Amino acid sequence: MRVKVKVPATSANLGPGFDVAGVAVTLYNTFTFELIDQGVEIVGCPEQFSGEDNLTYQAFCAGAEETGLHFGGVRIECRSEVPYTRGLGSSSTCIVAGIVGAFAFMGRYDDRQDILNLATRIEGHPDNVAPAIFGGLTVSVMADVITTLNIPVKNDYRFVAFIPPFTLSTQLSRSVLPDTVSRKDAIGNISHLSLLVASLINGHDEGLRIGFHDHLHQPYRGSLIAGYDAIMERLEADTSVLGCYLSGAGPTIMAVIRADDLMGVVRLKEELHDCLDGWEVVKLEMDTRGYVCDYE
Amino acid sequence: MRVKVKVPATSANLGPGFDVAGVAVTLYNTFTFELIDQGVEIVGCPEQFSGEDNLTYQAFCAGAEETGLHFGGVRIECRSEVPYTRGLGSSSTCIVAGIVGAFAFMGRYDDRQDILNLATRIEGHPDNVAPAIFGGLTVSVMADVITTLNIPVKNDYRFVAFIPPFTLSTQLSRSVLPDTVSRKDAIGNISHLSLLVASLINGHDEGLRIGFHDHLHQPYRGSLIAGYDAIMERLEADTSVLGCYLSGAGPTIMAVIRADDLMGVVRLKEELHDCLDGWEVVKLEMDTRGYVCDYE
Repeated sequence: MRVKVKVPATSANLGPGFDVAGVAVTLYNTFTFELIDQGVEIVGCPEQFSGEDNLTYQAFCAGAEETGLHFGGVRIECRSEVPYTRGLGSSSTCIVAGIVGAFAFMGRYDDRQDILNLATRIEGHPDNVAPAIFGGLTVSVMADVITTLNIPVKNDYRFVAFIPPFTLSTQLSRSVLPDTVSRKDAIGNISHLSLLVASLINGHDEGLRIGFHDHLHQPYRGSLIAGYDAIMERLEADTSVLGCYLSGAGPTIMAVIRADDLMGVVRLKEELHDCLDGWEVVKLEMDTRGYVCDYE
Repeated sequence: MRVKVKVPATSANLGPGFDVAGVAVTLYNTFTFELIDQGVEIVGCPEQFSGEDNLTYQAFCAGAEETGLHFGGVRIECRSEVPYTRGLGSSSTCIVAGIVGAFAFMGRYDDRQDILNLATRIEGHPDNVAPAIFGGLTVSVMADVITTLNIPVKNDYRFVAFIPPFTLSTQLSRSVLPDTVSRKDAIGNISHLSLLVASLINGHDEGLRIGFHDHLHQPYRGSLIAGYDAIMERLEADTSVLGCYLSGAGPTIMAVIRADDLMGVVRLKEELHDCLDGWEVVKLEMDTRGYVCDYE
């Protein structure tokens, strides 16, 4: 018996929802787990990640400990669509898949709240793992337990990911953030996030452009990303772009367009072509299911 | 012809939604306007407010200027249920009523967005005037124009107002706020407001208790209000209280309970009776209409 877990990429923060909001998108990493007599065999991922410190394997071990699964060894096959260290929740897919894999061998593949608690403990914050587990647009609060709720989104959007040819470590991207902020900026983010959430619920697309504005992390992180200012400026100037933001800790930049704006990506590629040397542009939908687990 | 305008009281901030969120409640000030040959006659309000610097009259003049209404004088009759300088939006009722009164003489009594823009200009921030105009629970963002959206609230709640026998000026209540806050507190408010909004939309009452927690203004303002800590502590300890917060700039404290908790106010009055010397306890519903205007 093998357990197959398919986990969506996620785009966290959505501008003002720093460490809180995240959305699952239709780009997937798939992991297949098979119990073997001993050792760990990891195939389908770069050599340097295929040892015992592999994040999926570490999460699998944590899931095994949590559920009381005893195993000799495990073979993990990875098939990756989600680019690594680009702000699209690649490591969250590994953590979620590892835990779900172990839970599945104990028949608990659908215990999503327990899986969320453990995944957040490993990741440190819930903004990527929550949408990877529950799908859709989620907000999460860390207290004694993690509370995650879905925001019902009325209209149909597309997320256009501008993925640069370089990486940005989350650690570096966090190190540039100041410990204190002005009350004005704090209230700015509160008002923008409220507007963003209410606009998504009510289908008020006019509110999204302001709603995606952030004062707490993007102004500091942008300078770490070559081309950030130019790309954001062009996206802000395009009246068909409903909003744009730094995906997670970056460096990917996300633009939101209407689903029926079929020429949107073609147009944006043309408008931005002189800023996009080596950048990949991918149109994504919102994933509404979260991870999917199956036995084979 | 006389114009009659009935405006609901409002409770702003709702904890983490500082300067952003507000809710209209079922306590009303009613104003009747009649054009007269000259001068200003204000009846039904305390002597010291019945001169030309009366807020309703000032707002009426602003509304007249905005709409091009020429008038010799005006007579304003006030009937007040909303206590003054208690954090229940009493001055917003005056501002909204004055503007609506003038607009109504030009047939524009329902131009709510224009009325919001002018009212915000007079009040300085939209968090009280917006729900007084649109009803329900609103979030507002101030940019070139004021954007206000309603949050659809799934369950039926009651707002229990604990109104002290003393006043607290908004100016003093603002003066104690620090200009900078920690990033942690800013993110705390962002996460709590997200949880609050998502919980109200989804009918997830368990999320409200954490969702109403604030780090940006209540910790500073509480010390200005005799009895604040004791009352908040008792309310937090009552498991039937879904959440509690400082209404507007205070000093009124608001507790939220389920509509079907019919004994809620009786129980809270008993539990808190030794902290409530001279305090009034009033059970309110959410007003969903905003101001109502009529001709007579």
